[in-house]
Amino acid sequence: MTDAPSRETSTQETYSPGGFCPLTFHDATEGFSKGTDTPRDYLERCLATIASREPVVQGWVCMNEAGAREAADASSARWKSGTPLSPIDGMPIGIKDLLETRDMPTRMGSPLFKDNHPKRDSALVQALRQAGAVVLGKTVTTELGMSHPGPTTNPFDASRTPGGSSSGSAAVVGARMVPAAIGTQVVGSVIRPASFCGNWALKPTQGALNRGERQGLSHSTVGVHAGMAEDMWLVAAEIAKRAGGDPGYPGLFGPAAPPDPRKPARLAVLHGEGWPLTEPATRAAFERVLAALGGRGVALLLPGENKLLDALEASVADAMSLSTEMCAFEMRWSVENMIAQHKDGISASLRARLELGRAMSTDDYRDLLRRRTEARTRLAALAPLVDGFVAPAAIGPAPKLGTEAGTRGTIVHTTGDPSYNAMSSILGAPVVTVPLMAVGGLPVGVQVMGQQHDDAAIAAIARWMAAEVPPVEANG
Amino acid sequence: MTDAPSRETSTQETYSPGGFCPLTFHDATEGFSKGTDTPRDYLERCLATIASREPVVQGWVCMNEAGAREAADASSARWKSGTPLSPIDGMPIGIKDLLETRDMPTRMGSPLFKDNHPKRDSALVQALRQAGAVVLGKTVTTELGMSHPGPTTNPFDASRTPGGSSSGSAAVVGARMVPAAIGTQVVGSVIRPASFCGNWALKPTQGALNRGERQGLSHSTVGVHAGMAEDMWLVAAEIAKRAGGDPGYPGLFGPAAPPDPRKPARLAVLHGEGWPLTEPATRAAFERVLAALGGRGVALLLPGENKLLDALEASVADAMSLSTEMCAFEMRWSVENMIAQHKDGISASLRARLELGRAMSTDDYRDLLRRRTEARTRLAALAPLVDGFVAPAAIGPAPKLGTEAGTRGTIVHTTGDPSYNAMSSILGAPVVTVPLMAVGGLPVGVQVMGQQHDDAAIAAIARWMAAEVPPVEANG
Repeated sequence: MTDAPSRETSTQETYSPGGFCPLTFHDATEGFSKGTDTPRDYLERCLATIASREPVVQGWVCMNEAGAREAADASSARWKSGTPLSPIDGMPIGIKDLLETRDMPTRMGSPLFKDNHPKRDSALVQALRQAGAVVLGKTVTTELGMSHPGPTTNPFDASRTPGGSSSGSAAVVGARMVPAAIGTQVVGSVIRPASFCGNWALKPTQGALNRGERQGLSHSTVGVHAGMAEDMWLVAAEIAKRAGGDPGYPGLFGPAAPPDPRKPARLAVLHGEGWPLTEPATRAAFERVLAALGGRGVALLLPGENKLLDALEASVADAMSLSTEMCAFEMRWSVENMIAQHKDGISASLRARLELGRAMSTDDYRDLLRRRTEARTRLAALAPLVDGFVAPAAIGPAPKLGTEAGTRGTIVHTTGDPSYNAMSSILGAPVVTVPLMAVGGLPVGVQVMGQQHDDAAIAAIARWMAAEVPPVEANG
Repeated sequence: MTDAPSRETSTQETYSPGGFCPLTFHDATEGFSKGTDTPRDYLERCLATIASREPVVQGWVCMNEAGAREAADASSARWKSGTPLSPIDGMPIGIKDLLETRDMPTRMGSPLFKDNHPKRDSALVQALRQAGAVVLGKTVTTELGMSHPGPTTNPFDASRTPGGSSSGSAAVVGARMVPAAIGTQVVGSVIRPASFCGNWALKPTQGALNRGERQGLSHSTVGVHAGMAEDMWLVAAEIAKRAGGDPGYPGLFGPAAPPDPRKPARLAVLHGEGWPLTEPATRAAFERVLAALGGRGVALLLPGENKLLDALEASVADAMSLSTEMCAFEMRWSVENMIAQHKDGISASLRARLELGRAMSTDDYRDLLRRRTEARTRLAALAPLVDGFVAPAAIGPAPKLGTEAGTRGTIVHTTGDPSYNAMSSILGAPVVTVPLMAVGGLPVGVQVMGQQHDDAAIAAIARWMAAEVPPVEANG
């Protein structure tokens, strides 16, 4: 295990959604079968990219290169003998540093967990290893998956944030260091960084992928970042097959293979809290996406056109505060433990979350649960009317490092505004973000949200959009 | 912190439900206020009982006597100055050794966790300390809360099991070492040991009391063992007030003070899997309880008299296997981790549970979820018809140590048959067990089950039964 190299300078990339060539894996396995390529060679190419990009990107907390090479060699032998364990056998993958890995520490972006190293694999890490994937390293998270940022920079502009909390997972995929990485989301921690880093990403239906030891927040999920839709789906499906969903949940529904692209008949446009805050160029770019959808015969249900959609909009109009308050209440006892044990080492923004939780009563929390349940009822009411929902995945491209755009009240937030992201979290709804736009040479995603358990259906719609809707490039 | 003393011989007690004088706390606080008694003196009396009984009972894994004395002194000062933190300020309490305590290790009844000592308090432990309770020590659990037993013996006959998995919590309350102790239940681990040890116990509605770091099994709960109903309720209410319920659950409903006794209009008799296995003397004793209820004007709905009750009976007819299989699937990844890390140190019965989990598919698990949901629907259908359900809390008194009465298939089980206990677990329903019967000089409880969130209502019914139904003593 090696710690990540320290910061150096390196060249910056300019992003174009049509021109960007992501690192993919699903199309490499044919070479593994034919003998023209091997998982070990694939890994070495990833390591070469990491050596080149990591000094600036700083997406990794630590890596187990020796273990990865050993796993890649074992995978190479399996592909050679025609006995791969799964379609992702040999795939190098990054794991957000909130989730336990038996061969690497789990530092959680907090100095309090610097020496934390349980010798266990989180359920999905265990599943990935069983599927033959090469668990290469741990990726940077904000402090405990909340607001306080780590060192990671945006792979397309090192002066900008990669987003958070899954900062490293998004950045290492955007920088083509690995084809996929695991993130987690409780407010907007998968979809926003994916948008900022040009990833495909799946934030699945609540409970669809096993969160292992991290069951403490009632609407958090794990999610998958990838360069391409196929790899995104394959990773999710292989995890689901082996680790199932959270306890008490039925797990991910859908085929083992990536769902084929499928044109939706009707999509609703969801504004949520994000639209009023959306930057003009991003708004214009998204409207071009909507026009392209309309031009291809997709009926669009717009805000104000339907009472059920209006009711849903009203329910997600304060999704951010609802999500933040629920988390603050749910996590207060574990933060209290950190303070009892360490006193210091906790950021001001985390302390602000604790104060929020401390000020809440059980009845306050029950009322949040009621609101969340009502919002979910309103989402379900739209099932007969639309095949899915579309919205920008962020209010604009990644802001400059240190910009406090996402700050709410006393909780300082510098990894970009999550206004478009909390809605799917409180709804427990699946979302796929598609890297379909560029604004000022930086990526901005389009998100497709569905009903609970429609993960495969929205992945199919997202793939259709990627194939049929021309990428949009706008000046910043 | 001191390890528990090793085994020695001591006198055995014979149990009589009418004559047994449990250790109580709620009635001691008046003395604390008046200055005729102090929490420190109360603790010293507990420690004296422990010194006398523990060599045979072996209910404690370890104790923090120094920390307890310090906490008791602080509590004494608060009572003296008229500023107690809660009605349980100063109460000495035992914590099942599955739950984390910052000042003591958490060994989980497994040699693999011998040195496990996270410096954290589980949510409810934190809440108890905030309420002023004196966290005295960790109580023996079976291996990881499953089948393989620890060293604890029954406080009323040292040749018999105290039940499991909350073996120590039940025994230290039954032995009058402490007035209350925390247990956990996923199949029958609160209600059965409480029945065997003459405790009052509350297995609350699923999610009603925060399980802290132990969120991995979808229908497990924490529960409270106590010598008296009042202490049982106060402990639950003070935890709920501070730690709330599980993430995503509304927490315990009910008053801060113990609910007053309340006569039910109508109770259903639930046979479940237990009745056919119930020992004749216990059956006869329970029928005397039913006769007493009838004699006091409580209408009884008997099996076979109502289609909705028959439907519920059909749903709980295989509650044991349903619960066991769900747990096996949910825990398989964490047991896999133990095997990957240690190879040995896992009991044959736990290995059998792992094999059961390994053999299951996601669809198998989904079908168990469906059955559990249907069972809960059938319970809810009876809400307009009855105020609660009564059944024996176990098929008989505690069996001899080593008896494999609860064994199912390959999973050897020596802490007594849990056939009466799994039904409330899969239903997520609250249960209170009342120490109302003795069979052959050993305790057997009567359980009162309610609808989800009826915790306070069934506690009120249970108190009424304890007050109005004459205790039953039967020959073994």
